[in-house]
Amino acid sequence: MDLKQYFRDIQDFPKEGILFKDITPLLLSPEAREEMLETLVTTLKDKKIDKVVGVESRGFFFGILLAQKLNAGFIPVRKPKKLPYETISASYELEYGQDTLEMHIDAIQKGDKVLIHDDVLATGGTIKAVCELVEKLGGEIVQCNFLMELSFLTGREKIKGKEIFAAITY
Amino acid sequence: MDLKQYFRDIQDFPKEGILFKDITPLLLSPEAREEMLETLVTTLKDKKIDKVVGVESRGFFFGILLAQKLNAGFIPVRKPKKLPYETISASYELEYGQDTLEMHIDAIQKGDKVLIHDDVLATGGTIKAVCELVEKLGGEIVQCNFLMELSFLTGREKIKGKEIFAAITY
Repeated sequence: MDLKQYFRDIQDFPKEGILFKDITPLLLSPEAREEMLETLVTTLKDKKIDKVVGVESRGFFFGILLAQKLNAGFIPVRKPKKLPYETISASYELEYGQDTLEMHIDAIQKGDKVLIHDDVLATGGTIKAVCELVEKLGGEIVQCNFLMELSFLTGREKIKGKEIFAAITY
Repeated sequence: MDLKQYFRDIQDFPKEGILFKDITPLLLSPEAREEMLETLVTTLKDKKIDKVVGVESRGFFFGILLAQKLNAGFIPVRKPKKLPYETISASYELEYGQDTLEMHIDAIQKGDKVLIHDDVLATGGTIKAVCELVEKLGGEIVQCNFLMELSFLTGREKIKGKEIFAAITY
């Protein structure tokens, strides 16, 4: 199965000049979803995972599927003021200004083996902030995985030293 | 297992006077998550489900887990301008003003058997709008299910005639 068929090109979204990769065809196909899940899980063989972190909001989809498959806890990382309990936060630079992500303070225990998931590795700002959150709570990052990597944006430079896996590379 | 233990009370969130039910403890426990999933799926025995619709964004978690369990397609319903492809939309009244939800036009084929999932049935405005979206595309709604129902808000009155299931009732 060619998983790339399940990523739909959308021109000029969310703004002009950007070629967006729409993952809804992947979500819509049980077969493609299962193959993607297997592709991601295979790289984790023999590795214990206590918690899977999924990044708001397209990272929630395969984040929780991975947690279910690995029998691990699932932790949502969200935009400010979305999580109701006490949180820690990390900020990262955008083209203009900055953005912030939050995680519940009781989500991770010291020494937890953590898998971080997001749909796409682009410039790497988001994933770097998420790594900071996990490590602030004492979690050990086993891997950062992604459905796809936009390699021309060199995002993996931002999380050097971390194990990184992307099912598809553009 | 008492699933209610995995719903955490948060006073005055998102605003004063509201007692919010935090589902992150449920997401964090693989055992509780599995029991919730079984509780929801049991009510669907012998019913064919082609597509599961999950409502942004807390409906994404169990929405996609249900889709995976039922070997069905998963469809995210989102706030405006989040879905990249062509959409249909439905609006619903809020306390002040209104809100809109969108779904991709190619998400549902005429005659598809559809399960709609959200985390909570409150006033029912959201779920009514989602039902409209599904029916606009010719989908047949098999059930609307929820992790919890806030029965004092009488939301089920808004979707009379639909089959409704909530794992927990407050």
